[in-house]
Amino acid sequence: MIQLDFEKTGGLIPAIVQDEATGEILMLAYMNQQAFEATLSTGKATYYSRSRQTLWVKGETSGNVQLVKEIRIDCDNDTILLKVEQVGRAACHTGHRSCFYKKVENGSIRIMGEPLFDPEEVYDK
Amino acid sequence: MIQLDFEKTGGLIPAIVQDEATGEILMLAYMNQQAFEATLSTGKATYYSRSRQTLWVKGETSGNVQLVKEIRIDCDNDTILLKVEQVGRAACHTGHRSCFYKKVENGSIRIMGEPLFDPEEVYDK
Repeated sequence: MIQLDFEKTGGLIPAIVQDEATGEILMLAYMNQQAFEATLSTGKATYYSRSRQTLWVKGETSGNVQLVKEIRIDCDNDTILLKVEQVGRAACHTGHRSCFYKKVENGSIRIMGEPLFDPEEVYDK
Repeated sequence: MIQLDFEKTGGLIPAIVQDEATGEILMLAYMNQQAFEATLSTGKATYYSRSRQTLWVKGETSGNVQLVKEIRIDCDNDTILLKVEQVGRAACHTGHRSCFYKKVENGSIRIMGEPLFDPEEVYDK
């Protein structure tokens, strides 16, 4: 049995999502115990949506699911690292490959890369 | 001016720390506004220690500081990604290179790799 420390942070712990093939960081999301167990049992990354307050199978709307290839836990048992195969072209709801497309440069933000899909076409159907 | 959303999570946001050269995830820590500004101004990763409730220059005890090479912000402005040069051999207080040395395999934990230093020698002087 894998004991994660969900209590330290009020029931949710962060999950870093890394592209298994390239090492790129795709996003960070949160899991509760139920999301972690669903991820283990289905092999598809499942998170807890803080805004919608519900379990959230990543890609359930966009089709851009994340197939979990490896799971790592940190020293304190309060952070998860998922190495995934990102189905579809992008992980971010903005259409960018990665959510981390804003680079800090000289005290301001520079947008890196271009969206790979139009969010309105994916989410507003 | 860079606006991060510290309020959503009560003043602290997670910072993913990635080895700039290899792409390996080294650790996850938390920053408040002051830690973020200190990181920007000094170029050394500075976090907020939730357990000690104080600013924490990573490596101040061990010497294993993190030189910040690139900073990324995510789509929602509530997560930071630091790409760093890890001074010394290891980022984790256990002596492991990465904090994510526990691999989930068949429902249990397998320890990956060996500590690169003895924590008692580093922290108990």
